[in-house]
Amino acid sequence: MTKRTNYCGQVSKENLGQEVTLKGWVKKRRDLGNLIFIDLRDREGFVQIVFNPETNKEAWEVADSCRTEYVIEVTGTVSAREGNAINPNMATGEIEVLASNIIILNSAKTTPFLIDEGESVNDELRLKYRYLDLRRPEMLSNLRLRHEITKSVRGYLDGEEFIDVETPYLNKSTPEGARDYLVPSRIQEGHFYALPQSPQITKQLLMGAGFDRYYQIVRCFRDEDLRGDRQPEFTQIDIETSFLSPEEIQDHTEQLIAKVMKDVKGIDVALPFPRISYDESMARFGNDKPDMRFGMELIDLSEVVKPIEFKVFQMALEAGGQVKAIVAKGAAESYSRKDMDKLGEFVGQYGAKGLAWLKVDEEGLKGPIAKFMTEHEAAVLEATNAEAGDLIMFAADQADVVAASLGALRNKLGKELGLIDESQFNFLWVVDWPLLEFDEEAGRFTSAHHPFTMPKAGDLELLETAPEKVYAEAYDIVLNGYELGGGSSRIHQRDIQEKMFKVLGFTAESAEEQFGFLLEALDFGFPPHGGIALGLDRFAMLLAGKDNIREVIAFPKNSKAIDPMNQAPGKVSAEQLADLHLIVNENQEG
Amino acid sequence: MTKRTNYCGQVSKENLGQEVTLKGWVKKRRDLGNLIFIDLRDREGFVQIVFNPETNKEAWEVADSCRTEYVIEVTGTVSAREGNAINPNMATGEIEVLASNIIILNSAKTTPFLIDEGESVNDELRLKYRYLDLRRPEMLSNLRLRHEITKSVRGYLDGEEFIDVETPYLNKSTPEGARDYLVPSRIQEGHFYALPQSPQITKQLLMGAGFDRYYQIVRCFRDEDLRGDRQPEFTQIDIETSFLSPEEIQDHTEQLIAKVMKDVKGIDVALPFPRISYDESMARFGNDKPDMRFGMELIDLSEVVKPIEFKVFQMALEAGGQVKAIVAKGAAESYSRKDMDKLGEFVGQYGAKGLAWLKVDEEGLKGPIAKFMTEHEAAVLEATNAEAGDLIMFAADQADVVAASLGALRNKLGKELGLIDESQFNFLWVVDWPLLEFDEEAGRFTSAHHPFTMPKAGDLELLETAPEKVYAEAYDIVLNGYELGGGSSRIHQRDIQEKMFKVLGFTAESAEEQFGFLLEALDFGFPPHGGIALGLDRFAMLLAGKDNIREVIAFPKNSKAIDPMNQAPGKVSAEQLADLHLIVNENQEG
Repeated sequence: MTKRTNYCGQVSKENLGQEVTLKGWVKKRRDLGNLIFIDLRDREGFVQIVFNPETNKEAWEVADSCRTEYVIEVTGTVSAREGNAINPNMATGEIEVLASNIIILNSAKTTPFLIDEGESVNDELRLKYRYLDLRRPEMLSNLRLRHEITKSVRGYLDGEEFIDVETPYLNKSTPEGARDYLVPSRIQEGHFYALPQSPQITKQLLMGAGFDRYYQIVRCFRDEDLRGDRQPEFTQIDIETSFLSPEEIQDHTEQLIAKVMKDVKGIDVALPFPRISYDESMARFGNDKPDMRFGMELIDLSEVVKPIEFKVFQMALEAGGQVKAIVAKGAAESYSRKDMDKLGEFVGQYGAKGLAWLKVDEEGLKGPIAKFMTEHEAAVLEATNAEAGDLIMFAADQADVVAASLGALRNKLGKELGLIDESQFNFLWVVDWPLLEFDEEAGRFTSAHHPFTMPKAGDLELLETAPEKVYAEAYDIVLNGYELGGGSSRIHQRDIQEKMFKVLGFTAESAEEQFGFLLEALDFGFPPHGGIALGLDRFAMLLAGKDNIREVIAFPKNSKAIDPMNQAPGKVSAEQLADLHLIVNENQEG
Repeated sequence: MTKRTNYCGQVSKENLGQEVTLKGWVKKRRDLGNLIFIDLRDREGFVQIVFNPETNKEAWEVADSCRTEYVIEVTGTVSAREGNAINPNMATGEIEVLASNIIILNSAKTTPFLIDEGESVNDELRLKYRYLDLRRPEMLSNLRLRHEITKSVRGYLDGEEFIDVETPYLNKSTPEGARDYLVPSRIQEGHFYALPQSPQITKQLLMGAGFDRYYQIVRCFRDEDLRGDRQPEFTQIDIETSFLSPEEIQDHTEQLIAKVMKDVKGIDVALPFPRISYDESMARFGNDKPDMRFGMELIDLSEVVKPIEFKVFQMALEAGGQVKAIVAKGAAESYSRKDMDKLGEFVGQYGAKGLAWLKVDEEGLKGPIAKFMTEHEAAVLEATNAEAGDLIMFAADQADVVAASLGALRNKLGKELGLIDESQFNFLWVVDWPLLEFDEEAGRFTSAHHPFTMPKAGDLELLETAPEKVYAEAYDIVLNGYELGGGSSRIHQRDIQEKMFKVLGFTAESAEEQFGFLLEALDFGFPPHGGIALGLDRFAMLLAGKDNIREVIAFPKNSKAIDPMNQAPGKVSAEQLADLHLIVNENQEG
């Protein structure tokens, strides 16, 4: 093999007259008269190679045998293209390489899809032949962008003296949180490791060890049913610090994000990011991760509609609920009755019993419930700021249902109506989260974030008397309507951590059994600490302008957690199972 | 909380007269007259704080209540120490902080061991309270050194346009290599993921995808019985390239290592590293990872001893074996007969039936087998270059036993006799490995490296006729007698890969079932490629001057693969097992 001199995509006018050796894939071959043209592709782009039988008959014959995706090595001279031959749509379009030699390094069968058409191929086939899908310049570029992000993140954190520490993947299963992936132990019969859902406790222990500033770009695992932006394994930019206030941690996070945006996208983001409280976010956007690139905020009409004799509103208000609305400016004409029925079905998914709506025209309010409004038109118009051409949509229910339905509807309409500036990166802090959520099914409180989150100092005394009223020192960072990450101050005092476990339904014994080592650690001089974790997959997805994290993961799983390429998970041998002291229960129901 | 102004260990004469706020752990408290002295420790070191009841009675009282490992915040003024008070053994020994304020951030019970005495604590206790063990400056420094290494590695590889790609941890179990850790699937009953022993196939597929240069600092998993320098999970600096020759990959590796040595240790290493073949290494050092910091090479005496009528030698030679010796210069006096018996037992572990030896004095050869030598003294002395005072030790057996016993003996004596310059970092390439090893137990060939290693071009035709004679395009990098990493060219042609599977005992069907996706990938334009993987844990261990990788891993497992801190692996709930369609086989034998 001759040594490569240049990447195909980097041959330029600066190389005119030079002899170059290139290695890559046959992207396309064309025959024109007795000349053969090959577009040769590598990771940096492609360049046109010309084979002339009069220059080197033997090379021409080899070129003649080349098919798409053959891997070849070509030596030749860089030559300028003239006149019509110049291709302004191609990075290397001003030059071509006149081949003097060619070696076929490997042949290729016809690929299941053309690399250039990979985008239109169905997802399962793309995953089965992922190595072909990844040959698409767009996929390579997504993965390189991901690397640019981690490089930038490390640059910031290394510069700020954070210590990158690797924490164990073979960890302990804990009952809180999502379902763990388990790893059976061979040596300890009937015992299991768990793959970490996050290195939460471990990184806290590093603070107990005095590491002061920790980070890790770390894989996390959750055995949950998969949705569009979920994978069994995902990557977290994981940060923990001692002695810093939430504001200082947020400030580091902002600096880090600003560096990434500058390094990777060349964008200067304005700091600090805006902050709104969780309660305000829910009230104004029906959502704890609001997309702030457009308005259409939720308007509370509970007072305004109180006198209106529309049963749906009255019942909601009497049951302690609320009536809220969003206004789609100028959208009245765009949504037919049928469309409105569909939107009604849509909000139904979020618990709403229906979608009341009104259209505004020059004469006033129109639509099925307009008749109830006649005396109150002015009040409704004033409260909603609605004008002729606008569409007003109502939700009347308990606060959580109102928020969920109008929040989702707002996001849907924001997209449909083109209200979103897709070029914008809109960062936002949502702060002051509730500490706990009540799980109706389990009949007990669960952590809104995780059981190690510090309650707000002022709310500590409510922890035992009125847990539902306790707020947390917790904050989420939101980008364009996605939760990019979450952080908090952690509990560093044993008595508070014990109270927390109690509120979560642990007995003293079960807390000791599961978390005894952490409680004991808190006894031995544990510093105040806190940190944040950012989702790398989502961050990369958003910066790549994609809507599925699979586009920024080299070898993702499909929606059944299968890798269609190697068919993992697979069967294993009887010996492997015996080693692990396991039997598969084939007759199990459900 | 007031904001910290300085790390304790970084307060210096430059801060004289300044008011500083420090946060850290009480390392030591002394009372002298009515003054209280606290050595306050954080990750950067420690500094002396002085509390004077006349300056601030209240602060003095708080300080008086402080015990070792309390976490405190102190504000005070940096003051110069005078005369005797200057402590030249302490980085901050020229100054102290006169405290004006103190806040106790957390108290501490008496720790199970004193942080300063952690080194002498038994390993199990150190692991159980790892967060305390990690408070020792030496442990922190080991972990920071590890981070310095990865920073330097990334710096090199990023600069050379390698792309950092994350590969899946939930992978497929393959029958080759060590035992896999398995992860049961919940969705696919009776199916299992495997945690990767290395991302070998995956990174090859990235070459198939045209990524050209890949790297990853990645966790790998092997469910093997543990030895001193093994852990269930370990970290690999994983590199793969397309179109590069073994020499070019070795060159990158050398540049990378030279950068690490410079960045982390300030040492200029000479490039290129020496290269010896596997066969030469076995012949001269009895070892495939020779420690070249000292001599004591193996000397082949098979010819010299042929005429000697010593049965042990004769039998070995007649059975097609060999007789070799090592000479410990000037060691004759240091080893008694009893010592020599012990060395005999030692080589017994490596298959030797005993250890014949001779001592040299002014008169000639002495020792139990000297009587056989009388006529051949001159020949033996000449061949071994032995002089008065030297100790000659023999092994007579099949070549592998001779190599194993003398190789181990050489390493042992090199240490015992202080022949090793511990400050030296001796890098070496061992090249031209055999492709296969014959597994007597299984009655078949196994891969010396892995089944994807490319045979030497000239040996390809022997693959089917005389596999034992085939050499591989494989190379190991050795540091101070440890295998630091191994690399190779990989097979990129389907027909060769199929032949390789056949040699390894696969049927066409079983190869297809296990590796069909790889074989298929080789059909679609796979480039020539190769790469290397370096063991980060070992590299960090050696640069930290330690002899166990646990010293450079934050939370390692013990020799039973248990984490004594959180007791992972642990029991899991019946529900978790049912979700995974598993039953633990409690009645299984052995």
